[in-house]
Amino acid sequence: MACLDFASDNHAPVHPAVMDAIARENEGAALPYGEDAASARVEARISELFERTCRVFAVTTGSAANGLALSLLSPPYGVILTHEAAHIQTGECGLPEFYTGGAKLLPVAGENGKLTPDGIRTAIANFGHGSPGTPPLAALSLTQSTEMGTLYSRAELSDLADLARRHGLAMHMDGARFANALAATGHSPAELSWKAGVDILSLGGTKNGGMAAELVVVFDPARVADFERRRKRSGHLWSKARYLAAQWEALLVDDLWRANARHANAMAMQMAEGLKMIAPITQPCPVETNQVFATMPDAMAKALHDAGALFHRWAATDKPDHALHRLVTSWATQPDDVDAFLALARSAA
Amino acid sequence: MACLDFASDNHAPVHPAVMDAIARENEGAALPYGEDAASARVEARISELFERTCRVFAVTTGSAANGLALSLLSPPYGVILTHEAAHIQTGECGLPEFYTGGAKLLPVAGENGKLTPDGIRTAIANFGHGSPGTPPLAALSLTQSTEMGTLYSRAELSDLADLARRHGLAMHMDGARFANALAATGHSPAELSWKAGVDILSLGGTKNGGMAAELVVVFDPARVADFERRRKRSGHLWSKARYLAAQWEALLVDDLWRANARHANAMAMQMAEGLKMIAPITQPCPVETNQVFATMPDAMAKALHDAGALFHRWAATDKPDHALHRLVTSWATQPDDVDAFLALARSAA
Amino acid sequence: MACLDFASDNHAPVHPAVMDAIARENEGAALPYGEDAASARVEARISELFERTCRVFAVTTGSAANGLALSLLSPPYGVILTHEAAHIQTGECGLPEFYTGGAKLLPVAGENGKLTPDGIRTAIANFGHGSPGTPPLAALSLTQSTEMGTLYSRAELSDLADLARRHGLAMHMDGARFANALAATGHSPAELSWKAGVDILSLGGTKNGGMAAELVVVFDPARVADFERRRKRSGHLWSKARYLAAQWEALLVDDLWRANARHANAMAMQMAEGLKMIAPITQPCPVETNQVFATMPDAMAKALHDAGALFHRWAATDKPDHALHRLVTSWATQPDDVDAFLALARSAA
Amino acid sequence: MACLDFASDNHAPVHPAVMDAIARENEGAALPYGEDAASARVEARISELFERTCRVFAVTTGSAANGLALSLLSPPYGVILTHEAAHIQTGECGLPEFYTGGAKLLPVAGENGKLTPDGIRTAIANFGHGSPGTPPLAALSLTQSTEMGTLYSRAELSDLADLARRHGLAMHMDGARFANALAATGHSPAELSWKAGVDILSLGGTKNGGMAAELVVVFDPARVADFERRRKRSGHLWSKARYLAAQWEALLVDDLWRANARHANAMAMQMAEGLKMIAPITQPCPVETNQVFATMPDAMAKALHDAGALFHRWAATDKPDHALHRLVTSWATQPDDVDAFLALARSAA
Repeated sequence: MACLDFASDNHAPVHPAVMDAIARENEGAALPYGEDAASARVEARISELFERTCRVFAVTTGSAANGLALSLLSPPYGVILTHEAAHIQTGECGLPEFYTGGAKLLPVAGENGKLTPDGIRTAIANFGHGSPGTPPLAALSLTQSTEMGTLYSRAELSDLADLARRHGLAMHMDGARFANALAATGHSPAELSWKAGVDILSLGGTKNGGMAAELVVVFDPARVADFERRRKRSGHLWSKARYLAAQWEALLVDDLWRANARHANAMAMQMAEGLKMIAPITQPCPVETNQVFATMPDAMAKALHDAGALFHRWAATDKPDHALHRLVTSWATQPDDVDAFLALARSAA
Repeated sequence: MACLDFASDNHAPVHPAVMDAIARENEGAALPYGEDAASARVEARISELFERTCRVFAVTTGSAANGLALSLLSPPYGVILTHEAAHIQTGECGLPEFYTGGAKLLPVAGENGKLTPDGIRTAIANFGHGSPGTPPLAALSLTQSTEMGTLYSRAELSDLADLARRHGLAMHMDGARFANALAATGHSPAELSWKAGVDILSLGGTKNGGMAAELVVVFDPARVADFERRRKRSGHLWSKARYLAAQWEALLVDDLWRANARHANAMAMQMAEGLKMIAPITQPCPVETNQVFATMPDAMAKALHDAGALFHRWAATDKPDHALHRLVTSWATQPDDVDAFLALARSAA
Repeated sequence: MACLDFASDNHAPVHPAVMDAIARENEGAALPYGEDAASARVEARISELFERTCRVFAVTTGSAANGLALSLLSPPYGVILTHEAAHIQTGECGLPEFYTGGAKLLPVAGENGKLTPDGIRTAIANFGHGSPGTPPLAALSLTQSTEMGTLYSRAELSDLADLARRHGLAMHMDGARFANALAATGHSPAELSWKAGVDILSLGGTKNGGMAAELVVVFDPARVADFERRRKRSGHLWSKARYLAAQWEALLVDDLWRANARHANAMAMQMAEGLKMIAPITQPCPVETNQVFATMPDAMAKALHDAGALFHRWAATDKPDHALHRLVTSWATQPDDVDAFLALARSAA
Repeated sequence: MACLDFASDNHAPVHPAVMDAIARENEGAALPYGEDAASARVEARISELFERTCRVFAVTTGSAANGLALSLLSPPYGVILTHEAAHIQTGECGLPEFYTGGAKLLPVAGENGKLTPDGIRTAIANFGHGSPGTPPLAALSLTQSTEMGTLYSRAELSDLADLARRHGLAMHMDGARFANALAATGHSPAELSWKAGVDILSLGGTKNGGMAAELVVVFDPARVADFERRRKRSGHLWSKARYLAAQWEALLVDDLWRANARHANAMAMQMAEGLKMIAPITQPCPVETNQVFATMPDAMAKALHDAGALFHRWAATDKPDHALHRLVTSWATQPDDVDAFLALARSAA
């Protein structure tokens, strides 16, 4: 039976290869706290893939990865610039403020979930006037692929990195869906991260087929000095860490992470193409990875929900009785699932 | 000789009546930590003036008053809405985040330094979409008179209070220049505070002629339960508190606080009127209290600074080689000071 | 081949029944964030076992469970009394201070890792003298079974609860090895928790055969108001929470948790009995659950470590060239493992 | 009439020379936030007196000075060793935890309010066992003169500094009554501070005749990098800072600070000598500065309190119906005040 759950890629189960790897890891005793062999292998493999010696720390939620990363990049009185719709701003219940000990998030406007140099310049210009009380700008955090499913090109990343450098901002990338960006752009991991100026990457595996498999990838070794302590004191140091490492080992075998992402992206394209044919639906932003945003009449959304389809209302729109909704596909989405949804939508149109 | 210092009303000295009161308080031993007689008299007198039994706590900076007030109104994961140019957002080096244990300030746009219901509604609509991770809205903080020297009318305050109530927001007023608002509007302290929905008022005396004389006025007794502890653990509980109380006693005798404010406001009007006559200068926002904002050519600003005038560059403008500057008057500003500045400006025009 | 790893029960693998349950849970999509069916079943089953409607929240580390629990029981300026050797004091890198926003841990001395009413009374008497600056006592945290492997009897718990109540202290139990206490005493879960005055229990499953399976069990519903927000903002809300729930479902089937604990306890007894026969070794504290503390000559410890045995040096001793070491058994320890270790020890004696 | 207030040296009024200096400072406008001339003069004068270029920051409470100092010396997850009766541990409502963002205070036992190398070694040995979760030792904070009025000799300071250095601990001195130590020992400011290993000194002026005059004296310039921001975000940056500086200028003229301290110490000696003659009173700790600790029958204490004498009950004692009380003298205490108290005590004996 078709699965009509497009609420989030975190509704998906664990990829069988990942589950197998977890089960295979379950042999005998092992050193805890990341001192195990699997954790070392993952660090080495990530370094290889990113073409640079990285320090890699596993945690179980993207939120934790983001909070720990930001706590390394901003003092408690620093300012972190980010998109006004960034997950760290609107979806983590004040987590960056908690982890940094009180840093201020300065939201920046921008089309399609993307930061632009102009947007950042405006936000900086509007913020304070250089009094001794103006908190210092510390970091820039951007999401790739974005919360709207869109992508930063290499040129766009380069412009943002230049601006960040000029303002002395460290750069954090929330890569909860980094693999989807890799798959969509064809760029290498290095090109989309440290070569683009990123100091710390939150690298998501959970939505990509993992169970709870997020990595903090630190490119600048000077930054890791207190990472270990901060992870411990936030309760994110697993004792049986080998089961986290096993998930990433599986995702990296035969490039499974990119295959999973490519598949999820393709399913979103199928969905987007199909929705274009359904008259009252409009799509306000380009579909570049595995998220589709669709404006539809409230009655249609209700009919779909009543029929069992799962997806989130995202925002109000200017059009009366219409709202913007989000549909997310995953490694587990099947073409038939999309077709079933589209059929339902057509009948509700 | 004329004083050309219009940088801030906190450059002014202490009013002689306040200094006398401090000196008069200096007799024999007294109970510390606000248990002295003068502190009790101030609480009683403020309650009388505000027509309500208030709890009144003295601290020495407006920043501390704001931080402590907000820490009573928001949980560590709450959201505090405030104007994007509010002092708590841009001028306190992350103090609200520190005092609340990590609350998020959500900046709201608005003309002339003022919040509007529409601006707040837009900010709320753009913020999150009701996911479990969206941090809860906790409080609204507004400044009266504002950082741009403008005023909220009673009707405007009432509209904001209605909106706050509908969203379950507690209301904080940063009254660093509350007396200037009283003097300008002719309204009573009660009308501009709790009758307008304010839960806690930061009541400024330092800029009004005090040495360091800020009061946290708490209208809702249920809110004070942990105030004393928070003040102590932030280091803002003075041992020799009688010298803080003495300042406010002096400011309240014969309505000195309103007289001081009225005078400062009048000096700003004189400045504004004079500047209107100087061709290249424009004033982008109404002068309603003791702050004047003036756009002038950079060369003119330089000439004035070179001649010893003190005032802050506030922001860039769209006009090339022009910037927005701020001029602040105080209880100590003399008409001759303003005239001397205007003469200088005319010669630099 | 025998496993000589007695460093910690968290070196053990995942119990096969738990791993099977995780794999079985891996079917189709599910609601995230604990809204899944398995999470609901665990809450219901825990409530049944504890003979009371409990709120149950899954996290992945005992540290996180402790930090979140304590953040509900103490204001940021409160004092939490705990044993000077408690894990929350010495082994979590300041986590309770982080989660509570700055609460103070007041360490209390006590034999064999156990708090006593006398010890607590002394600590309170030595702490402050009732000045306005003395931070208020907020909570008592105790560990069952303790960090020394010892147990509180029901009478001891009752005395501590009486004292806590008299001082207005909330009561937290760190139950990282709660199952070991259940197995050793034969008491019911209720008798060792809420019936003994406990407000919130950190219930450990990871050391008991789980992968990462810790529950915060809240007995007082008034306390949960902000738990959900605090879990989210600390990054401990899993999206794919069903895989956490599955672990506890497995542990509770046919009382597996108690069987695992009983087995671990028995292995420790076998170890303790064996060590008694080895002349230079002394055991300074009673072996009541799955931890054995043994004082041995440094040369002997070195020989054992050189032979591949894993166990932690715990503390210095008064005896020159001797130190105290800790040996921990788990659900996975086999009688042959213990015998192999004992044989090694005899040969090193 | 005699003043019977021996509750604390912070009950005393402001010294007339200090009050005069404040009033004299009240001329015309001045730069705010410590940019004024008086603040610069104080920094220069302190540097001269301490025989080293110091950075000097004025705040208004000793608590704030301590909190800011410690926030420079410990990361949020660090451990600060201090005496179990230190003011920062028992009298500041969790302020060090707040300012450091969660550092842990590890209380150390010691006779007469003094830390000893043995006491510190024991505390360290009992604290943790080097697991990855053991929070790192960061700083040692000691009080000179101590909360019991006793003194560290130069040799004792040197031993503590050696131990601190071996453990990599930064050293903070709470000098709320530093002048009393100078006066009692005859040592120089440098000898009792940086030459004794102190990195940051909280230098108290309030109890010495000031109104609210505490200095943070930073000997290691590398430490000041973020001090300014931390002071601002805690609300302790005064706008009209010249009035703080004026107080210290007055205290340093003709060595008034040492004269005030010498006088206060002498008054305590007179009190201690007199109490020795009163049979039921015993003094458990040496009187070395301006604090006297006396054990007396409860009936006697009640009679003294009923007669209007002010002094604090400090602790219970082993002797039934007796308690330990504290008597503090100040620059304002007169010999007749002490005699009047002694006469009362004799009549109550």
